[in-house]
Amino acid sequence: MTDAKALPGLLDPNVVLRRHVEDLSARFSGMVSAETVERMVFESYAALGRTARVKTHVPVLACRFATSRLTALAQAKGVLAKEAPEVLFICVQNAGRSQMAAAMVEHFSEGRVHVRSAGSMPADTVDPVVLDVLSTRGMVVTDAFPKPLTDDVVQAADVVITMGCGDACPIYPGKRYLDWAVADPAGQDRAAVDAIASDIETRVRGLLAELAA
Amino acid sequence: MTDAKALPGLLDPNVVLRRHVEDLSARFSGMVSAETVERMVFESYAALGRTARVKTHVPVLACRFATSRLTALAQAKGVLAKEAPEVLFICVQNAGRSQMAAAMVEHFSEGRVHVRSAGSMPADTVDPVVLDVLSTRGMVVTDAFPKPLTDDVVQAADVVITMGCGDACPIYPGKRYLDWAVADPAGQDRAAVDAIASDIETRVRGLLAELAA
Repeated sequence: MTDAKALPGLLDPNVVLRRHVEDLSARFSGMVSAETVERMVFESYAALGRTARVKTHVPVLACRFATSRLTALAQAKGVLAKEAPEVLFICVQNAGRSQMAAAMVEHFSEGRVHVRSAGSMPADTVDPVVLDVLSTRGMVVTDAFPKPLTDDVVQAADVVITMGCGDACPIYPGKRYLDWAVADPAGQDRAAVDAIASDIETRVRGLLAELAA
Repeated sequence: MTDAKALPGLLDPNVVLRRHVEDLSARFSGMVSAETVERMVFESYAALGRTARVKTHVPVLACRFATSRLTALAQAKGVLAKEAPEVLFICVQNAGRSQMAAAMVEHFSEGRVHVRSAGSMPADTVDPVVLDVLSTRGMVVTDAFPKPLTDDVVQAADVVITMGCGDACPIYPGKRYLDWAVADPAGQDRAAVDAIASDIETRVRGLLAELAA
């Protein structure tokens, strides 16, 4: 709130979004049109704002979301090289299962696999019990947030793994689709969430062994 | 299902979507880039597919949604003339309140006002009791479907009216924002929904009188 008084311009969503449109237009120049960059930033802002209860961070999160989506789009178009196989996890809220799976792929693959996650009906925030369990397991996740499933991240994925979201994901040729029947940590206690984490870890380790083979 | 056997190509989402990208690229040529058209069609498909329980109609609805969004975008960019003031209604599910208000604006304005509607957390289908109440009031709505709130329709609107969705909508300069405290018809019986319809009708008639003045 002190910042809001000191730096009103920085906290005006339009100012923040316009600045990121400029930055990202330069960064993705020659790969994606300026119009697409603008749409991606503003649509990401509208999409996260639909479900966010606290609005303060939405412009910044929208810019991170837009950057990830533009990277996915450029990769799917073949104008940006993929440096690692791309895995996409989708659950309903992108607050528990898919966040745990994504954190584990990042942690155990040590950068050899790139991962994104999304939800069919994204929650407001990541489940704090899930973050706590991940932290105890050595994965300190501080920057994750629930994101709606978008076409671009599906197009960029090599492997799409659904976890309890049914057939919410578009099916495109050339991708591998898996469905993991993992229990939902929403509303569960720490012990139950830890058991779910163990289940996901076994599956993630299996997936990574396969991808490395 | 008979159609699925007779016309497999027509029901393959990719085939339907690609064809609509071509059609819409021609229609919006010189107004919106081909890349933006493609993104709009595929993102509309992913967005509606997230919450649709029955997937059969999603490609066709996605193309209608994309057409409306591209029209909004071209209008907001000033490359397509707006022939009427543009009103946007937003509620949570885009299944009851905002659908009733949109149907009434269309009905009572007789085309002098254009209207769109959206939801912060769109439902699977429009509430059948709402459709029944509208029908009894002389508004036979057969082609409405819940749509997530997107940036483009906000950018194109002159008046944005929220109905129970809190601050889910981005705030942009140059638009008039209203909040209507209308009861939610979800799960209510026919009489209650009819009373809500009367409340909305009074508000819609007042809005139209204002817009005409």
